[in-house]
Amino acid sequence: MDTKPTILVQLDTDALPSSFDRVVAVDAGVQHLFSYGGVTPAAVMPLVHGCIFTRGPQDLKRTAVFVGGSDVAAGEAVLAEVKKHLIPSYGLTVSVMLDSNGANTTAAAAVRAAGRHANLNVANSLVLGGTGPVGQRVARLLAKHGGHVRIGSRQKERAEGVCAAIRAAIPGANVEAVAVASSSDGPKALEGRELVIAAGAPGAVLLPKKIRDTCRTLRVAIDLNGVPPTGIEGVDLGDKAKDRDGVICYGALGVGGTKMRIHKAAITELFARNNAVLDVEEIYQIALQVQ
Amino acid sequence: MDTKPTILVQLDTDALPSSFDRVVAVDAGVQHLFSYGGVTPAAVMPLVHGCIFTRGPQDLKRTAVFVGGSDVAAGEAVLAEVKKHLIPSYGLTVSVMLDSNGANTTAAAAVRAAGRHANLNVANSLVLGGTGPVGQRVARLLAKHGGHVRIGSRQKERAEGVCAAIRAAIPGANVEAVAVASSSDGPKALEGRELVIAAGAPGAVLLPKKIRDTCRTLRVAIDLNGVPPTGIEGVDLGDKAKDRDGVICYGALGVGGTKMRIHKAAITELFARNNAVLDVEEIYQIALQVQ
Amino acid sequence: MDTKPTILVQLDTDALPSSFDRVVAVDAGVQHLFSYGGVTPAAVMPLVHGCIFTRGPQDLKRTAVFVGGSDVAAGEAVLAEVKKHLIPSYGLTVSVMLDSNGANTTAAAAVRAAGRHANLNVANSLVLGGTGPVGQRVARLLAKHGGHVRIGSRQKERAEGVCAAIRAAIPGANVEAVAVASSSDGPKALEGRELVIAAGAPGAVLLPKKIRDTCRTLRVAIDLNGVPPTGIEGVDLGDKAKDRDGVICYGALGVGGTKMRIHKAAITELFARNNAVLDVEEIYQIALQVQ
Repeated sequence: MDTKPTILVQLDTDALPSSFDRVVAVDAGVQHLFSYGGVTPAAVMPLVHGCIFTRGPQDLKRTAVFVGGSDVAAGEAVLAEVKKHLIPSYGLTVSVMLDSNGANTTAAAAVRAAGRHANLNVANSLVLGGTGPVGQRVARLLAKHGGHVRIGSRQKERAEGVCAAIRAAIPGANVEAVAVASSSDGPKALEGRELVIAAGAPGAVLLPKKIRDTCRTLRVAIDLNGVPPTGIEGVDLGDKAKDRDGVICYGALGVGGTKMRIHKAAITELFARNNAVLDVEEIYQIALQVQ
Repeated sequence: MDTKPTILVQLDTDALPSSFDRVVAVDAGVQHLFSYGGVTPAAVMPLVHGCIFTRGPQDLKRTAVFVGGSDVAAGEAVLAEVKKHLIPSYGLTVSVMLDSNGANTTAAAAVRAAGRHANLNVANSLVLGGTGPVGQRVARLLAKHGGHVRIGSRQKERAEGVCAAIRAAIPGANVEAVAVASSSDGPKALEGRELVIAAGAPGAVLLPKKIRDTCRTLRVAIDLNGVPPTGIEGVDLGDKAKDRDGVICYGALGVGGTKMRIHKAAITELFARNNAVLDVEEIYQIALQVQ
Repeated sequence: MDTKPTILVQLDTDALPSSFDRVVAVDAGVQHLFSYGGVTPAAVMPLVHGCIFTRGPQDLKRTAVFVGGSDVAAGEAVLAEVKKHLIPSYGLTVSVMLDSNGANTTAAAAVRAAGRHANLNVANSLVLGGTGPVGQRVARLLAKHGGHVRIGSRQKERAEGVCAAIRAAIPGANVEAVAVASSSDGPKALEGRELVIAAGAPGAVLLPKKIRDTCRTLRVAIDLNGVPPTGIEGVDLGDKAKDRDGVICYGALGVGGTKMRIHKAAITELFARNNAVLDVEEIYQIALQVQ
């Protein structure tokens, strides 16, 4: 065999590995998909060794690892373990991507959508649900662009923690924690914002329409709730760059096409080399190339 | 990629998904098989969502679901759950097939074989082991054809229950429960029958030769026991339209080739559209097209 | 479909089936790989039946079984169970291979390497770690060649047990148990040996350099430890026919390329017919054909 087939090793922290991630892998052209469910860090070493000790150096880029599952923290622990067992000093590495709960591709797609309508290097933004896995990633990507980012949470201390983590990763990051626990918090959090992205838990309306209407600076509103109601009242799941009273709106389905293209492009990127580590920032860089 | 590869998602209620169903899927031309074991209704929703939310409407017919495993009731519960999470109002459906324990394809193959030698619209028949998963399905298919169907069971009450279920599904079904607990029940149950199909548990002889010989009307005898002894004494596992003293006989292996062709044809049918639900009656319709 | 795709059914006794064995299977050209983890003998029957009852006799050689996992004894039990459910009297068989923990391919590769530098039909040899799964297999292959084989173990009684098993399998086998518990045992065990192969547990130095230097007859030293230190002091993991003071040395990595080629050739051999049973001796025969 001249060219070895491509292999994606799916390490999923749920008992049954995500069929969503499997379909996307196949549609991205993966030839052999090895799907593992119930993966814990303790199980990772032999699985990684099976990747790096089986093919010659020139073929290691034809094998890659995808970490997924519904629990983002569990996925991060598995990713850390995967990296621990690669042996870069001997060139014994394979590319690896993290997208537990779709958090990285969703965050990248949301910020990518926002960047089509606002100059993210200067725009002031608010991230609602900013302490969840998607919200944290959205805030981090926005902060890296350079604008001022407010991170909203019901518990301000948790938002402070996210701010600290972002400042540690991105020196000079311009982030601010805001409480959004009561209805009176809304106008203050929204003040001066050009962009709001909501990434809260399903079922919670984070930004009522009447509060949103008090903000004269708002230009872009992106909601990532996959089921009604949307976190930003008045945005529809299907909105895709929809102009509503001067505000460009996106709903989860409107962002979904971009998210899917990013996911597939990231899978493709895994096989371009044998040492890619695709976490949120790398996936966002890929997102910037996606049409 | 112009045409997306075909994907079959195998939801198996046993811990290790059936290798039989996997081989048949591959031989039916499925390109990617996602096999899940230990599937319970609680696990179904995300697996179905992964099917319907990943490909565009024009490609949904390239993804399908197969429900299997040794426990037919468990499979029925999984099928019901699959249907619950399809969203036909938005066209977000994939085709699904149930064949736990091979019950649907076996029943369809048996009735298909019978129909080659008897006019099922008028023939009187007896189904032995008529309350088991295969027997119930055989009885239902025969009843739908229109002939008079006796459903035999050691416990007549259980046979009554099956009759009631068939009448509820097929108004006007001409079914009758008969006890076959003692040797004296045999001649009475068999009286006036042109066709007998045995679908009982392995190891039990349901119809001794000497009782069968008392029946002058019998023309077709089909036995579905995969291991000796056959439920109908005198029929051999390998019989395939074998004439034994004027009675056309089939054994499990003789029906097996037809069963396999039906199974493969049903898998193929799954990918012809995105909204097929292949349970016993739909699979029998497919069986009627199989050579 | 004219030619059915090749299917390898991987029965792995670990919870998550080996990614190593999966990659090798794919690289050996297997088209569909059905991977099962957590396989016990109790689960084997339906999996084997699914192999032998689905394809016609002419296609059974396109389906094969691979038994693996980290526990060699568990793999042997699964292999025995697989053989029990094949039905050779009806031609209903598929080929099967055992390579739990890589023991068979590793032993075959080590003896193959030794045979490049010594006449194994007459050479006197010593197997250190001779009671472990790899060591036992190495000793057996050497004994079959005909030379005198010393089997070393810390507990001489265990080595005696291995000798008895080899004599039972190979009448006239010229094997001898030796204790290698204390440092004074070394020179005696090594006396008159042309070849030493170390297959002990990781981390234990079985043959210190100063003891080795006392042996004037030694020509070939092969160490199978995958991580430092090597069991034979002075041999490097990467040694591949490396001449060190007149002794030809191999380390685990030096043997690894041959092991991989043997593994792939054995997988290929599975699909050449439908009745191969590839345990250590059959795999060694394949090894002799590998370049």
